[in-house]
Amino acid sequence: MKKKNKKVNAAILIIGNEILSGRTQDKNVAFISNWLNLKCGISVNEVRIIPDKEKTIINNLLEMSKNFNYVFTTGGIGPTHDDITASSISKAFKVKYEIHKEAFEILENYYGKSKFNDGRKKMAKMPRGSKLIYNPSSAAPGFIIKNVFSLPGVPSILNSMIENCKNFLVKGLKVHSKTLNLFTVESNISKMLTAIQNKHMKFVDIGSYPFFRLGKVGVSIVTRSTSKKKLQDVKKDLHQLAKLKKIKVLKI
Amino acid sequence: MKKKNKKVNAAILIIGNEILSGRTQDKNVAFISNWLNLKCGISVNEVRIIPDKEKTIINNLLEMSKNFNYVFTTGGIGPTHDDITASSISKAFKVKYEIHKEAFEILENYYGKSKFNDGRKKMAKMPRGSKLIYNPSSAAPGFIIKNVFSLPGVPSILNSMIENCKNFLVKGLKVHSKTLNLFTVESNISKMLTAIQNKHMKFVDIGSYPFFRLGKVGVSIVTRSTSKKKLQDVKKDLHQLAKLKKIKVLKI
Repeated sequence: MKKKNKKVNAAILIIGNEILSGRTQDKNVAFISNWLNLKCGISVNEVRIIPDKEKTIINNLLEMSKNFNYVFTTGGIGPTHDDITASSISKAFKVKYEIHKEAFEILENYYGKSKFNDGRKKMAKMPRGSKLIYNPSSAAPGFIIKNVFSLPGVPSILNSMIENCKNFLVKGLKVHSKTLNLFTVESNISKMLTAIQNKHMKFVDIGSYPFFRLGKVGVSIVTRSTSKKKLQDVKKDLHQLAKLKKIKVLKI
Repeated sequence: MKKKNKKVNAAILIIGNEILSGRTQDKNVAFISNWLNLKCGISVNEVRIIPDKEKTIINNLLEMSKNFNYVFTTGGIGPTHDDITASSISKAFKVKYEIHKEAFEILENYYGKSKFNDGRKKMAKMPRGSKLIYNPSSAAPGFIIKNVFSLPGVPSILNSMIENCKNFLVKGLKVHSKTLNLFTVESNISKMLTAIQNKHMKFVDIGSYPFFRLGKVGVSIVTRSTSKKKLQDVKKDLHQLAKLKKIKVLKI
């Protein structure tokens, strides 16, 4: 992975009626976002969940590919009729949708010639010029075309493939994060918290999230910055706030 | 709720850095989508997850409000500095962001006059002309303006409020769903499944989803339609497919 000292962003495009309908709980957003941030210093700035419809896939893909450094798609690269991600991306980028020679060999080798049927052959078809994302759990590779990374929807398979994306990504500045849990309610600290956020506006993002734990209510203050030093400054101010308001701090 | 025999759709706009960063696993999409479909016959056609940034909220909200019958936003209506959903929606619709009299009274009554501080008063501010979505768990109401429904991000609170949206929604045609679990792999049935989907293209959506259960692999075939009769026709064809291919069927 190349290193660059700048902010790099990404978007995620979840393709699948089963997520939209609520039948299936998405788990890929949190996984990909955490991985990109921790391993590559890349922040996910937008996520969209859309149905398996060609025109919808094309429009959203082109918009996101233009607006973000990278786009990760999940879902729709299997062998069935509702798997239209690879053909749609080919149309979006106006390149041929065709058999990828290496992908074909990987799949033929995995299934054996006699069991390598049409459905399985379909998984070797992708946009012309794609690079492969190898799949250590079920062979069928994902692919990279321009700044788009296409991964499968099944979380366990996706998780096993993600490390194989690393070499194709330009690394950004890692965003560090510190959390302070306060046993109070948001409205008790909102005014002072606003002042702290305003003071550190330029370098630190501060988020405030209520929690309920073991019957107690509290607020998680999540601070995020590319500078560890700036996070330390904010931490001091937050401890000062807790002291002034006599709030119990859980941990930092 | 009014009844209309037509398709009604919705979009969900998740507002929150904590979901985008992967810190928090979203649970609201599946909950809202299931509720809308089962209770109101409304299909969710798009979801977006975006950061707590005013301009981003405004742009996405206006686009979705135009493209879908309803938009549900979650998150960003609490008392802290990063809760900017209500003020951003006011700007998007070019209406005043102001104290809602009834919301103010509800909150003042809930907290008591002496504890009704500025942070808490902020939760009574919303776009002028909003209708309230009452909150039985923590008082602070959501609001409805034009075709936008704004709900909080904390799932337990959102879940307790959702029924209070019902009277403001036009009911659509309910989408029925039947699932057939087959002990096979997708590529074994993809060709016949495509033929079945093509035959019933106009009235039934067929989705195919691999599963792993008790060490066995299988495929869930999910069929969705506004017509129970058409679902029955597809069911027959799917059982025929299973019989021909000698595939064990788990249940329908």
